[in-house]
Amino acid sequence: MVPGHEIVGKVVQTGAHVKKFKAGDLAGVGCMVDSCQVCENCQEGLEQYCLEGNTQTYNNLDRSGVPTYGGYSNTIVVREEFVLHVSEKLSLAATAPLLCAGITTYSPLRHWKVGKGHKLAVLGLGGLGHMAVKFGVAFGADVTVLSTSASKEQAAKDLGAHHFVVTSDAAQVDAVKGSFDFILDTVSAVHDMDLYLSLLRTNGTLINVGVPTEPYSVRPFSLLTGRRSMAGSGIGGIAETQEMLDFCAEHNIVSDIELIDIKDITASYERMLKGDVRYRFVIDMATL
Amino acid sequence: MVPGHEIVGKVVQTGAHVKKFKAGDLAGVGCMVDSCQVCENCQEGLEQYCLEGNTQTYNNLDRSGVPTYGGYSNTIVVREEFVLHVSEKLSLAATAPLLCAGITTYSPLRHWKVGKGHKLAVLGLGGLGHMAVKFGVAFGADVTVLSTSASKEQAAKDLGAHHFVVTSDAAQVDAVKGSFDFILDTVSAVHDMDLYLSLLRTNGTLINVGVPTEPYSVRPFSLLTGRRSMAGSGIGGIAETQEMLDFCAEHNIVSDIELIDIKDITASYERMLKGDVRYRFVIDMATL
Repeated sequence: MVPGHEIVGKVVQTGAHVKKFKAGDLAGVGCMVDSCQVCENCQEGLEQYCLEGNTQTYNNLDRSGVPTYGGYSNTIVVREEFVLHVSEKLSLAATAPLLCAGITTYSPLRHWKVGKGHKLAVLGLGGLGHMAVKFGVAFGADVTVLSTSASKEQAAKDLGAHHFVVTSDAAQVDAVKGSFDFILDTVSAVHDMDLYLSLLRTNGTLINVGVPTEPYSVRPFSLLTGRRSMAGSGIGGIAETQEMLDFCAEHNIVSDIELIDIKDITASYERMLKGDVRYRFVIDMATL
Repeated sequence: MVPGHEIVGKVVQTGAHVKKFKAGDLAGVGCMVDSCQVCENCQEGLEQYCLEGNTQTYNNLDRSGVPTYGGYSNTIVVREEFVLHVSEKLSLAATAPLLCAGITTYSPLRHWKVGKGHKLAVLGLGGLGHMAVKFGVAFGADVTVLSTSASKEQAAKDLGAHHFVVTSDAAQVDAVKGSFDFILDTVSAVHDMDLYLSLLRTNGTLINVGVPTEPYSVRPFSLLTGRRSMAGSGIGGIAETQEMLDFCAEHNIVSDIELIDIKDITASYERMLKGDVRYRFVIDMATL
């Protein structure tokens, strides 16, 4: 199995009926490469929530039962409806993570209309979190990064965050209780949901985009007190992903990356497990 | 301690500066009898979410530090801002449960604008659930009762529910997967949140108004799949409670009750624990 679902490159060949792309165009592919395209969600541009299930870019079976392989490859064949246009204005390598980390944070911020007048907290400052900060700032929200690592404060500010809270410091956490309209939770480790829900103001929403392996534990009063909500969100639809890429081109937003040689993936993977990456490794497939 | 927070009766005396009520008026008191009245939530009519905490009708300390006692009493003294007008058109006894069971279900249905075109499921058919059915139907939603007890089907239909699903019947549950815009969850026992979240359609919301003693366990993908939300809601503000009472008077909505003598409270409590009540016992305080 070949993983990789943040893919950018150049179109090398198109099918006879392809209209959106021609050889030589820059193109991107994200987490999904197909969907039923006829259910009400697909019709509304929510292919990620296809009622028959979308086809994931790797480790999935496509609509004809053939396994899908990902982007750690020199070529990939994808139907044009699931291929995105990528701007020449931006670094191609730094654009790649927009296809998952970018859209996964852009989509919920747009869906919940996060922007001017909102206090947004971004929980976790990794691949997803750093994009959430950039988008939150671009949308006009007052952005706070919540992190267990005091050492990330300067990095958060460099990304544009207005505030930084070390979540292991009880006094700092107490000072922001009941203050956020939204928390975008990018953490995929098990964490104390009741604590973070208590940081929401009345009618606030915590949106999960990280996926811990264990279920969340949530005390009923953490939601009932202040009519709070906890939601989940997964990537974005194709039209919205294109909108995000266009927004990024217009506002000069890309992922902060470290470009690596394919021979370094094991060392990079080990660094990633330790959180030692700002904020995404991108493999240069020319080194394959 | 004297409990009771669904209180109706007649005003017997008013303070010199009271303007909203005079002796002889019908009046109701719900779950709270005071709040700070100056925080932003109180100013917005959300006294139930008072940032300093509202004063509960019983087993609480009031703003001057004196314990509050509830409505199982022949009289109660409450500041006028927290007293509601009650219509003479409705049964006084059957109006009492509107002060908690009524507003607790009315408020979230209004907040989330549940009505025509929505499929609403009501989980649990007790004191809260039966009011949720009545309000859901009155607001124009397509209402399904979800219950563990097949025996409650006729009762649900009698209340106006359009559909009934026995949640212990896997085939019936499968048939409604992904179908509800909203689930109003009135169950205070521990229950399988992942199962019920799976019954929501894309962008659906499950609203908790029951309060289990154990935390909810929620798998991340139960929310992420279909961008679902889980929320909590507690009673309603004073203006909204009055709006609810007026709505009930206009639409002839009351609670289904069994009026009991105070000497029968122990037997009634035991019946309540067994779920043997449709749907609220109301104590006739004249029998005190």
